[in-house]
Amino acid sequence: MFKYKQVMVVRADLKLSKGKLAVQVAHGAVTAAFKAYKEKPEWFKAWFNEGQKKVVVKAENERELFELKAQAENLGIPTALIRDAGLTEVPPGTITCLAIGPAPEEIVDKVTGNLKLV
Amino acid sequence: MFKYKQVMVVRADLKLSKGKLAVQVAHGAVTAAFKAYKEKPEWFKAWFNEGQKKVVVKAENERELFELKAQAENLGIPTALIRDAGLTEVPPGTITCLAIGPAPEEIVDKVTGNLKLV
Repeated sequence: MFKYKQVMVVRADLKLSKGKLAVQVAHGAVTAAFKAYKEKPEWFKAWFNEGQKKVVVKAENERELFELKAQAENLGIPTALIRDAGLTEVPPGTITCLAIGPAPEEIVDKVTGNLKLV
Repeated sequence: MFKYKQVMVVRADLKLSKGKLAVQVAHGAVTAAFKAYKEKPEWFKAWFNEGQKKVVVKAENERELFELKAQAENLGIPTALIRDAGLTEVPPGTITCLAIGPAPEEIVDKVTGNLKLV
């Protein structure tokens, strides 16, 4: 049913609250969506018109986010790494989330296919 | 420090899981951000460059989301009401989230100033 998706990867080791997690995921979604809008307009339009499929999965730590980011970039997928201002819950500058895509599902799955849902 | 913000209002009565809630908030954030990008480009740019302040608050039910949407629109704030496809957790077509803004803080606060954080 969906041919495109956007995946937000959050750090399981940070134990963020429900509201804080949602904000980090939304920062990632907006930033990567605008990146795709400019760099991959066909992917962006197809994803947006299809209903913007989004998935939230988890990684173990910051290092895993960097590895996933490199893999996604090698495949030409727009990404956004989110650093929190750290006004609450985490120290300033903490990396909380990596947004990957929107991009075609089969390409995104090469990077995030093994990660577990939040 | 921030002069602009975007507020996502979620329904407390739905008891969504952490991941599901984050996806609904992200749908709202992306949809309202692109609406602002087209309808209120100065607000959008100022908010985006400032660091995209986002807040997640809760309302009691669907009816309250409709009331808040009407109030926001009367003040000229871009909004996005999110209906879930209902593949999991909630019935198809369930309204889950209202995104308000980005817009200047003092205008948004007229609508959401009394709502509690998630």
